[in-house]
Amino acid sequence: MKKMLVFQTDFTYKEGAVAAMYGVVKSVDSDIEIITATHEIPQYDTWSASYRLYQYIDFWPKGTIFVSVVDPGVGTSRTACVAETENGYYIVTPDNGSLTHVDRYFGIKSVRKIDETINRLHREDNGAVSIFHGRDLFGYCAARLAGGIISYEQVGEEYDTSMIVRHPIAEPRITEEGITGMFEINDPNFGNLWTNILLSDFLKAGFRMGDEIHTVITRNGETVFDQKIPYYDSFGKAPDHSVMIYNNEINKMGLAEVVGNLCQDYDLSYGKEYEVKFLHE
Amino acid sequence: MKKMLVFQTDFTYKEGAVAAMYGVVKSVDSDIEIITATHEIPQYDTWSASYRLYQYIDFWPKGTIFVSVVDPGVGTSRTACVAETENGYYIVTPDNGSLTHVDRYFGIKSVRKIDETINRLHREDNGAVSIFHGRDLFGYCAARLAGGIISYEQVGEEYDTSMIVRHPIAEPRITEEGITGMFEINDPNFGNLWTNILLSDFLKAGFRMGDEIHTVITRNGETVFDQKIPYYDSFGKAPDHSVMIYNNEINKMGLAEVVGNLCQDYDLSYGKEYEVKFLHE
Amino acid sequence: MKKMLVFQTDFTYKEGAVAAMYGVVKSVDSDIEIITATHEIPQYDTWSASYRLYQYIDFWPKGTIFVSVVDPGVGTSRTACVAETENGYYIVTPDNGSLTHVDRYFGIKSVRKIDETINRLHREDNGAVSIFHGRDLFGYCAARLAGGIISYEQVGEEYDTSMIVRHPIAEPRITEEGITGMFEINDPNFGNLWTNILLSDFLKAGFRMGDEIHTVITRNGETVFDQKIPYYDSFGKAPDHSVMIYNNEINKMGLAEVVGNLCQDYDLSYGKEYEVKFLHE
Repeated sequence: MKKMLVFQTDFTYKEGAVAAMYGVVKSVDSDIEIITATHEIPQYDTWSASYRLYQYIDFWPKGTIFVSVVDPGVGTSRTACVAETENGYYIVTPDNGSLTHVDRYFGIKSVRKIDETINRLHREDNGAVSIFHGRDLFGYCAARLAGGIISYEQVGEEYDTSMIVRHPIAEPRITEEGITGMFEINDPNFGNLWTNILLSDFLKAGFRMGDEIHTVITRNGETVFDQKIPYYDSFGKAPDHSVMIYNNEINKMGLAEVVGNLCQDYDLSYGKEYEVKFLHE
Repeated sequence: MKKMLVFQTDFTYKEGAVAAMYGVVKSVDSDIEIITATHEIPQYDTWSASYRLYQYIDFWPKGTIFVSVVDPGVGTSRTACVAETENGYYIVTPDNGSLTHVDRYFGIKSVRKIDETINRLHREDNGAVSIFHGRDLFGYCAARLAGGIISYEQVGEEYDTSMIVRHPIAEPRITEEGITGMFEINDPNFGNLWTNILLSDFLKAGFRMGDEIHTVITRNGETVFDQKIPYYDSFGKAPDHSVMIYNNEINKMGLAEVVGNLCQDYDLSYGKEYEVKFLHE
Repeated sequence: MKKMLVFQTDFTYKEGAVAAMYGVVKSVDSDIEIITATHEIPQYDTWSASYRLYQYIDFWPKGTIFVSVVDPGVGTSRTACVAETENGYYIVTPDNGSLTHVDRYFGIKSVRKIDETINRLHREDNGAVSIFHGRDLFGYCAARLAGGIISYEQVGEEYDTSMIVRHPIAEPRITEEGITGMFEINDPNFGNLWTNILLSDFLKAGFRMGDEIHTVITRNGETVFDQKIPYYDSFGKAPDHSVMIYNNEINKMGLAEVVGNLCQDYDLSYGKEYEVKFLHE
């Protein structure tokens, strides 16, 4: 396979950080192809970093190395690591919750702490710089791994996968009334909301394509949405600006406003304060 | 020529869709270089998708394959196709108007419907996913074509180019008074407006570089701009914040506010409600 | 080293300009890898263009060619040039101040004016286009250089480096009271402000890690910030939303609001109207 690295960060392109980080990679080995997954993870949001990795990781060739730098604790004692996943990928990241979803849905096989004595960029002029590990540590270490300069074993000492920092993930509940879950993320572009309810559980609860489903959303216990809406397989089947249920691209149930923006138009978002119920009647 | 694919979509980088789509490409053939034209086409706007392809396509090497995914009808019966252009390119896209300008200005030589039985990604877990054809259909099929796994003929069955979905394109009119046209697109970054009037027609109408030209813009018949403004070859020739006429990068007449933003400062935009007249007196 | 070009512009991805420019590069030599440093330099802001080059240039492999197109004077008599830096890089850019910081901190060894008779794209249809030098001149010339079609000497005639257009750069002053400087740029993503005070001068003035330092910021002579704030090596050492001093990624002193946005929350920015003083008492 071609040498490559896939990057996601919260740096944006508003200044020169991405370019400095990519330069370090090319300085290690100019044959490494650099691919931008995104630099628009919401700032400091390790939950989103974790979710996005989970969303796209297993569409890549086995062996692909991902670099995820959303790092509110840069320069503190949080561990800088490389994780090997059960499904055959490597993730170079601060161990700060960014591995949560990949661990939960695909599994982490092993994890190693980056040895900064060998896998950190040491220049005459950056010894006093402690605030840019994307450039000096994660990008540099990942490039050495992608370029074959070090093996995974040479990243640094292994530590127990049980020590990995994890965000709590809420579980949906099937009841006699239907199924209850939460919104765990949104699609910030089209304004869709994604629940934590797997298609398989939704079907197990008894719902079928084409059903009109009584859908209740609460925010901090207060009802903010209460409608019968259809479950369809594509947006084009419902009228413009109507709300519908669909199976999203990773087989979890989503809510969308057709050719509209559900989050904006209904003032909804994701997170613990929201509960969503799909009811049989 | 190096294997490569050029992508434009309305996905933005706000979530993981681009990364999932690119991962599928690399899984088909990791040697394919992925180039981002843009992921900021305005949402659901097949007119803009069409215009942008037209704007840049023929600056690429012959044989380049473009993937355009602005797809409000994803999952419905709109055709997924690959078009071969008269000037030697391939475009992988929903057939929903996105081919309008390339067809009009360069010509479509032939078009084929993507055969989903062989050129769609089939995974154990995505059979129930109907809402992400960028990843499962367009990106996947394009990668097979770019990687040489299938020939153009193996995309699927050919259909008649007369069946291609086209947006109506308005024609400018040369009169004794001057020339009348419309704004067909803007430059959303610098705020310039681009008319549908070709430089050649503008010259035929009798206008010359350096002329002060009486320019009238109407919105729904009401005059919203009426000034004598110069026609120059570069922005630096007019004072800052003055409005001028120029020949844009694809040889159509444009209007710009020098070191300013015409659209914002004069509350103008593009579309059918606008008419622009350049008058001899 | 792999053939590659690194681009920064103020084009954004909102329309097709980047794609047209990249297409020209690939048409010259499809083996050249195109890397996006950023297309979000603030519009017409040659100071920022200059600063960003300085921020990231020397993290790239020696010999890397950079293309910087922030070009308010496109089509006027400003010089289009290629500069060779003392530290071994090439920069293809309008000579309009964009070379200021690289010249000052790394040095420009020589500079050549691009010969438009041979190093400008000449197509049947673009002879009348004077407003897109990113595509027709800078991108094209850079691709010829990166592809080995021309040598640096064949770019065009050399001119004296003393003729390079430079922005004035303010110098910090060490006094008995402490050290006085200005904010020369910000980090528009995280909202940090970067001073023109080198870490080495800050240390020379007598400040040490962990010090609580009396910090006074004035705007047009009026005090807008006056607090004792700590100097730490990483953001995690101070409480959330407190303001602290740190050594930034290029060894200049910065000010940050921890897990916050200093510029927004304190209504601060950079530029000549601001002065910042670090005082011993």
